[in-house]
Amino acid sequence: MSSDPDRECPVDGGIDQQEMVSSKKSAVLVDGVILNGPTTDAKAGEKFVEEACRLIMEEVVLKATDVNEKVCEWRSPEQLKQLLDLEMRDTGEPHHRLLELCQDVIRYSVKTNHPRFFNQLYAGLDYYSLVARFMIEALNPSVYTYEVSPVFLLVEEAVLKKMIEFIGWKEGDGIFNPGGSVSNMYAMNLARYKYCPDIKEKGLSGLPRLILFTSAECHYSMKKAASFLGIGTDNVCFVETDGRGKMIPDELERQIWQARKEGAAPFLVCATSGTTVLGAFDPLDEIADICERHGLWLHVDASWGGSALLSRKHRKLLHGVHRADSVAWNPHKMLMAGIQCCALLVKDKSDLLKKCYSAKASYLFQQDKFYDVSYDTGDKSIQCSRRPDAFKFWMTWKALGTSGLEERVNRALALSRYLVEEIKKREGFKLLLEPEYANICFWYIPPSLREMEEGPEFWAKLNLVIALLLDL
Amino acid sequence: MSSDPDRECPVDGGIDQQEMVSSKKSAVLVDGVILNGPTTDAKAGEKFVEEACRLIMEEVVLKATDVNEKVCEWRSPEQLKQLLDLEMRDTGEPHHRLLELCQDVIRYSVKTNHPRFFNQLYAGLDYYSLVARFMIEALNPSVYTYEVSPVFLLVEEAVLKKMIEFIGWKEGDGIFNPGGSVSNMYAMNLARYKYCPDIKEKGLSGLPRLILFTSAECHYSMKKAASFLGIGTDNVCFVETDGRGKMIPDELERQIWQARKEGAAPFLVCATSGTTVLGAFDPLDEIADICERHGLWLHVDASWGGSALLSRKHRKLLHGVHRADSVAWNPHKMLMAGIQCCALLVKDKSDLLKKCYSAKASYLFQQDKFYDVSYDTGDKSIQCSRRPDAFKFWMTWKALGTSGLEERVNRALALSRYLVEEIKKREGFKLLLEPEYANICFWYIPPSLREMEEGPEFWAKLNLVIALLLDL
Repeated sequence: MSSDPDRECPVDGGIDQQEMVSSKKSAVLVDGVILNGPTTDAKAGEKFVEEACRLIMEEVVLKATDVNEKVCEWRSPEQLKQLLDLEMRDTGEPHHRLLELCQDVIRYSVKTNHPRFFNQLYAGLDYYSLVARFMIEALNPSVYTYEVSPVFLLVEEAVLKKMIEFIGWKEGDGIFNPGGSVSNMYAMNLARYKYCPDIKEKGLSGLPRLILFTSAECHYSMKKAASFLGIGTDNVCFVETDGRGKMIPDELERQIWQARKEGAAPFLVCATSGTTVLGAFDPLDEIADICERHGLWLHVDASWGGSALLSRKHRKLLHGVHRADSVAWNPHKMLMAGIQCCALLVKDKSDLLKKCYSAKASYLFQQDKFYDVSYDTGDKSIQCSRRPDAFKFWMTWKALGTSGLEERVNRALALSRYLVEEIKKREGFKLLLEPEYANICFWYIPPSLREMEEGPEFWAKLNLVIALLLDL
Repeated sequence: MSSDPDRECPVDGGIDQQEMVSSKKSAVLVDGVILNGPTTDAKAGEKFVEEACRLIMEEVVLKATDVNEKVCEWRSPEQLKQLLDLEMRDTGEPHHRLLELCQDVIRYSVKTNHPRFFNQLYAGLDYYSLVARFMIEALNPSVYTYEVSPVFLLVEEAVLKKMIEFIGWKEGDGIFNPGGSVSNMYAMNLARYKYCPDIKEKGLSGLPRLILFTSAECHYSMKKAASFLGIGTDNVCFVETDGRGKMIPDELERQIWQARKEGAAPFLVCATSGTTVLGAFDPLDEIADICERHGLWLHVDASWGGSALLSRKHRKLLHGVHRADSVAWNPHKMLMAGIQCCALLVKDKSDLLKKCYSAKASYLFQQDKFYDVSYDTGDKSIQCSRRPDAFKFWMTWKALGTSGLEERVNRALALSRYLVEEIKKREGFKLLLEPEYANICFWYIPPSLREMEEGPEFWAKLNLVIALLLDL
């Protein structure tokens, strides 16, 4: 193999480059570059990868799930800049130095797999999706055309089909996106395209003011989407929620009427299944009734709550979800598929996704290929290169089966239930509200405030305590 | 460690679950779930990861760069569905079966690292970014707030600063995005925000028709972006290019005048540095003059060509790039940082990126944190969770140094030069045009057509031959 001219040759082995080249064949010199000369030292590179993998295994995979290890070796930005050698220089660093750098990166990074990492709505280590993720990185694919990603496109198709089944649709379409925020944007754009296909070519200029409805507790990506899509954040109507953070259907309908009276054009209602802070589930069935009455697209942002669909016990939280036109669902959260793994699922089967998004790039999506080009799904996306995120979820599903995924959801919600009961029992803890899902909102009230009345002074002091606690 | 209750306990080890739980402590049963009972078998999981890593190393890292191996074991969609066990079932598969699945996935996937993979504008295996990618997957971070991604946010800052230096700006801002298409969208939205900040809240409705200019050879993401952002594809003016695929500045200026005459509102010119098909570089200096005269934002889509900036020999291709307002540059292409690694760089230092994109989510971007919250860069993004793609490029830069990256660019372009000379020498090959960059466009003309005149019949037949060749 080492005599093959295409195999990359060693450079660090103490052999003089020019000499080695000339001993094999005459050097091909173009623009000052010896084309058939040595480039990367493949053997050394492979050894480096092996050593780094060992380090990752020992320092991240084994240690990071160990409660005896810290979640994070905390340093302020100023301190960390001193500790890390961030600068990129003219000459490279040797492998042993790079391994030290890797060690530093691991040391000062937050171990999001750690059992005590509670910063965001994801946690835990899933060995199966981790393997899938390593495979993706090694294969470095992009899922736009079948010819370049045959396996991953078929896997995406299979995973979407299965997720659609759990939503309760007979058929549908979908795509994996880099984040639930992006899925929400896709849905908003799809709803707009459905409302008025001309927007794709003509744009919004000169059209009546498009307006959409979501709850006051929705994810902030709704505002980002409205701004990015040229709809404007003022045209997002935030519908009031009840004491449990759920959208009030009557309020929704009142606002739709109000918007129409003002000459705006309602086109979309976005309900949330699992709000970010309270973990609330909007009443989908009642909202679907309203959408039907007014001919509005119903999008359900189930980025967080969608995983409950896999549990026979808890899927009632999303009762009515099959009536949605589109659903965003992120298996990278409770199902631990690794950041990011986010599906947008669409009920329509008239190829709306493709019609809405296609740009028909002739260099990529030729129509005279030697296979069924309906597998070239890249033109359904706003991205050109796209990662095969479905594969991560597929691997975990293969490993655990639907029953294993169900157990994961049931367990997370049982643990939450347990925490709630403990909070209720313990002095100095105040539950904000009975949770529906895995978000437990509570206050810790220090002894000095326990007798104080809940006025402005109480809350000011309590807020200060919380900021101080986080500083510890 | 194994006696720690937080450490996950084995389940497959032949021990009865209930027995094990009760031998340690009494079972905590909530909603039918034994909370302190066994969940995942961590030891078995770790062993699975180790075995899979060995497989990835042997079958992908070592083999896929070997020219004696195939680029792809090709199967049609129908065949592949038969060969792969895609279905997700109720019960999971054992580890040995999962490893076989992994093997199948590798076998039928395209080896994009292979020296003979020429399908898209990326190729080759970079050992350093590969290690960075493995680390990212193991640590599973998200770069929105410093508290959850301290190292990766500082790395992103350092990489952006360095890229900005190579563009030739004294200072600037930027963000890594999931693809060059998304970077182009960001730029379009930024330019629009700069033109009229009210659009963020008010939207486009009722505004004059916004219009933008790009070359006829631009990437198709321009159309996608215009459609997604509510501008409309009809409002993308495709400026004519010369024989080498470069935007003709006089044509640009003529179209700007024309648009103004028609009552449209020009706000952006998007030049391309390295077009997708021909690899052409638009004349940035002349285009910048026009943008200055007309007060238009100049975005340079250097997703493909940006890497030339690292070569002292070839950076002249982007002469004038420092006059751009924003630049998209993808180190995942010629610099091999792994899909995706895409920066949008912005000259403005008045925090335009943040003003344009922020939604100020109070649950994530609290202002009373115990560190300098200017490091919480997540609100500059349309994404919520975001991958630390900058880290991949940083690792390669650390390993090779600027000089090593420069060599990589010089070598790629010297190889292209060599290919061009070989094409010219060889019968039956017809060079389409003298390339400027690494895109070599040529025809293979089979013996039967070599004497034929280049009329419609000739081209019809030639096109047919090419489709047949690809089918082999």
